[in-house]
Amino acid sequence: MWHQKTLSLKPRTRGFHLITAEIEANIPELKTIKTGLAHLFIKHTSASLTLNENADPDVQTDLETHFSKTAPENAPYYRHCCEGSDDMPAHIKCSLLGASLTIPVTNGRFNLGTWQGIYLCEHRNRAGSRQVVITLNGE
Amino acid sequence: MWHQKTLSLKPRTRGFHLITAEIEANIPELKTIKTGLAHLFIKHTSASLTLNENADPDVQTDLETHFSKTAPENAPYYRHCCEGSDDMPAHIKCSLLGASLTIPVTNGRFNLGTWQGIYLCEHRNRAGSRQVVITLNGE
Amino acid sequence: MWHQKTLSLKPRTRGFHLITAEIEANIPELKTIKTGLAHLFIKHTSASLTLNENADPDVQTDLETHFSKTAPENAPYYRHCCEGSDDMPAHIKCSLLGASLTIPVTNGRFNLGTWQGIYLCEHRNRAGSRQVVITLNGE
Repeated sequence: MWHQKTLSLKPRTRGFHLITAEIEANIPELKTIKTGLAHLFIKHTSASLTLNENADPDVQTDLETHFSKTAPENAPYYRHCCEGSDDMPAHIKCSLLGASLTIPVTNGRFNLGTWQGIYLCEHRNRAGSRQVVITLNGE
Repeated sequence: MWHQKTLSLKPRTRGFHLITAEIEANIPELKTIKTGLAHLFIKHTSASLTLNENADPDVQTDLETHFSKTAPENAPYYRHCCEGSDDMPAHIKCSLLGASLTIPVTNGRFNLGTWQGIYLCEHRNRAGSRQVVITLNGE
Repeated sequence: MWHQKTLSLKPRTRGFHLITAEIEANIPELKTIKTGLAHLFIKHTSASLTLNENADPDVQTDLETHFSKTAPENAPYYRHCCEGSDDMPAHIKCSLLGASLTIPVTNGRFNLGTWQGIYLCEHRNRAGSRQVVITLNGE
């Protein structure tokens, strides 16, 4: 059994945002899968998906601070500067964090740990809606 | 053909640990799959899974040293400090390294390269058993 | 429907290289899948796969510069030095960037964003051909 759809996520500010509820609300098909996998894929090179803590919002703030120190704006060696000082750091963060997540599905639900949530990592200062392709496969 | 099960890994000390043999010993169902994929998913936000060299244990030590320099304890900008100085670095490492691996299955075995092994990356100083959901799909 | 094959990629110099066209040219089976997933897996611990911008080659240069600063050669704490000064950095980059990609397949094509391309990240100074296992699954 295969289901595939593209979601347009609500635009977010730069940073790390918990989107588990927004994803789940858009895939009622999840309930029909007893055993399988859910694949989430973001179609961009300046935003990422990751899993991290779903409880304390300070984790999200600290992740944004950390990754923006790791991939700083205006590094003297950047050649790719034409799209703004936040653009090359966004590309680096994309490869560090990744464009996709694969999550086990068990009895119609994401089989996440108690503390795990799905994050949209928005790396641009001003971004619009992000497209995520969701592919569900199972029985 | 779908198989899914949850393993409780033996507790490990902080660091990078080769667990290929422990994983394989717990999924005899792998042998029944001629062509497919194996998905390994860790249900935690302070431990990760990765693939790296299976030969020289110095690689494991150097990875632990490197990632603990990249995501240091007690960085002055951390806000999320309530769970110990090793906690926020653990969350950063989780997003850097990732919670899951997908490995091709060929003729009943993981189709890994000669030097590739499955690592549990334990980011906490004192951790218990970690839960890994294994999903096998193939024909 | 399952298809699986191993490609030997052309050898590349150290750095980040766009390989979308080389991959697509070798999997005509992709056209037979209406809805599914493509899994690409590199069987090495000193080269990686990632997705990033397919337009400006400066992005590739900046990624190589950034990751070689993040995981420098000859760090004083490295123990694993026997295979050359580029070897331990290569292992670190492998775990940072990852050995595999999963890409949605829609109507016989990779469902990538406009700006997304598949990169081979070659971390060694002198490397031969790299093996990539491609697994296609869908209906």
